[in-house]
Amino acid sequence: MPARRELRPVRWSGDHIQILDQRRLPREERYLECRTPAAVASAIRTLAVRGAPLIGIAGGYGVALAAARAVKGVRRGGRGPSAESILGRVDRAAARLSAARPTAVNLDRAVRRVASAAAAGGVRDGALAPSAATATAIADTALAEAERIDAEEREACEAIGRFGSDLVPDGARVLTHCNTGTLATNWDGTAQAVITTAYDRGRVVAVWADETRPLLQGARLTAWELHRRGVPVTLLVDGAAGSLMARGLVDMVVVGADRIAANGDVANKVGTYPLAVLARRHRVPFVVAAPCSTIDLATPSGAAIPIEERDPREVTGELADAAAAAANPAFDVTPAALVSAIVTDAGVVRAPYRSGLRSAGASS
Amino acid sequence: MPARRELRPVRWSGDHIQILDQRRLPREERYLECRTPAAVASAIRTLAVRGAPLIGIAGGYGVALAAARAVKGVRRGGRGPSAESILGRVDRAAARLSAARPTAVNLDRAVRRVASAAAAGGVRDGALAPSAATATAIADTALAEAERIDAEEREACEAIGRFGSDLVPDGARVLTHCNTGTLATNWDGTAQAVITTAYDRGRVVAVWADETRPLLQGARLTAWELHRRGVPVTLLVDGAAGSLMARGLVDMVVVGADRIAANGDVANKVGTYPLAVLARRHRVPFVVAAPCSTIDLATPSGAAIPIEERDPREVTGELADAAAAAANPAFDVTPAALVSAIVTDAGVVRAPYRSGLRSAGASS
Repeated sequence: MPARRELRPVRWSGDHIQILDQRRLPREERYLECRTPAAVASAIRTLAVRGAPLIGIAGGYGVALAAARAVKGVRRGGRGPSAESILGRVDRAAARLSAARPTAVNLDRAVRRVASAAAAGGVRDGALAPSAATATAIADTALAEAERIDAEEREACEAIGRFGSDLVPDGARVLTHCNTGTLATNWDGTAQAVITTAYDRGRVVAVWADETRPLLQGARLTAWELHRRGVPVTLLVDGAAGSLMARGLVDMVVVGADRIAANGDVANKVGTYPLAVLARRHRVPFVVAAPCSTIDLATPSGAAIPIEERDPREVTGELADAAAAAANPAFDVTPAALVSAIVTDAGVVRAPYRSGLRSAGASS
Repeated sequence: MPARRELRPVRWSGDHIQILDQRRLPREERYLECRTPAAVASAIRTLAVRGAPLIGIAGGYGVALAAARAVKGVRRGGRGPSAESILGRVDRAAARLSAARPTAVNLDRAVRRVASAAAAGGVRDGALAPSAATATAIADTALAEAERIDAEEREACEAIGRFGSDLVPDGARVLTHCNTGTLATNWDGTAQAVITTAYDRGRVVAVWADETRPLLQGARLTAWELHRRGVPVTLLVDGAAGSLMARGLVDMVVVGADRIAANGDVANKVGTYPLAVLARRHRVPFVVAAPCSTIDLATPSGAAIPIEERDPREVTGELADAAAAAANPAFDVTPAALVSAIVTDAGVVRAPYRSGLRSAGASS
């Protein structure tokens, strides 16, 4: 396999954030230079950047960017905005970033963490105009927290790959949905780390990738990533997974998650729930892989997870009847009873999920 | 609703067959003028014309066209090819048309019927050079049989709509897959006739149409047809049907069929089987609507139905990773145990299906 430049879809670059525009993949590798929190929020909302862990990372850096911009005046002049007003700007940016997408808990959690870190960096001066040192501390603690979130995802991906690959049987043909790789996490991935780690260990002979309508993350992103990595991958339309299972061609389903409720219900890309129902019927293990940061102990069950309804034009596109209405729920909820195991960076959690998720979720 | 020109996607036009090119819909209503059986076979193979009953009709007219062309020499000259050679040409055209697509039994059945009619029209002269009258009889009986198949589908559609609409509950929100309307039957449709007839009777409040990847027959054809007819329709990606059912938004699933085996197993557009599994889980009636001509008593069960594997480029298209491989089964098999009822033009058949299908299938 030829050496490739390491893929890093979100990267802090001093005064801006470089974000790989995933809407243009696989045709073009173009990076957006996001110089404002609004630009980051827009990149998240429009799916230039997507994947629950990755939008958390992008959101975290977005808040760090807000802090860096807010303290600039202080650094330059001397007298400037109060710490309160700086932190107000940081909080408003955090709220804006958090609102960009509602389903993945990682985003809200990451922006809160970085905003809290910024506040902690600024406490010394209270509501007074901060000294240059305090201003620097606000920006630096915010950035350090964003970098910590990024680094934690790296470790989480590696741990998920390690734990999850133990569950993959020898000679497995593994089916996955949407994209859960580097393009979803900045690092090895979640479900995809399970697959690639198992592949590296010689256990995976074939990967089936659902194309994942309407935005084709499987066709555009997963196939692209797995090819880069030399893993044999075959696309299929989402409706064909059932017939593959019925023909005995799938040994395991592994998917990611956008939010895992306290009872083990899993919100993930629309089309996941049918896979879980089909896997149960055909006695195929259905495994969810996600970092502990995706577990939301404050959400009791799937019924309480907000499901984002996206623009119908993502469905109707250019080919449909011009006057057609469309429903476009971006996610669905798979009940815990259909999940064989949840692989986290803290280990593999099995039913009954409540206690295992409580320990794993508390560690995030 | 404004008056619209009546839709007739396949029409005999004397020396050629007019076929509405469904690949161009909904953008453009363009008719192909198919002047040879090979052109008809190509239209079938490339899905310019599709839908199990409609490709039967097109195939039937295709054989009639072969007969008309084969007897032309006789009509003009006097001495010409033998009846044997004329019927040989007809048979070769029938074989070519039948081979255009393997799954729908209607196609093979229709071309055999017309070829047999042509042979019956030519028996008087045996292997001798036929008289002009016999040549005319060959062509005329072939065409009459093709027209009979077309007329039978019209009656079948009306009967299916009548029988099937009785099964639709008041205020129903009905989900369907692929296209089963005029564009699949030349007339009212199969599953779609159930829906539109029930709509006309005031029973249907909403239609959910799966977009039906890879070729988007739901988005391009079903939405277009239902709009023309003033029926409220909302598109969704195939993977979203499960979440709609889980949210209690679907009261009935009605689909067509490409072949129904003697035991009630149903081959239909890929993505149908997952709907049946989901419908069972959510206690939503799953109804199959098809003319008796789709019942194949010679096929004992779904395992014996050949499933067409189509060009992977239908899946990869323009957006997927250029190097991506793809699986592209065009159909899947729904086991009889998941089917609530089969609506035919001979009435509604319920489990156990074998005896009911035997009577209904024998009538075709």
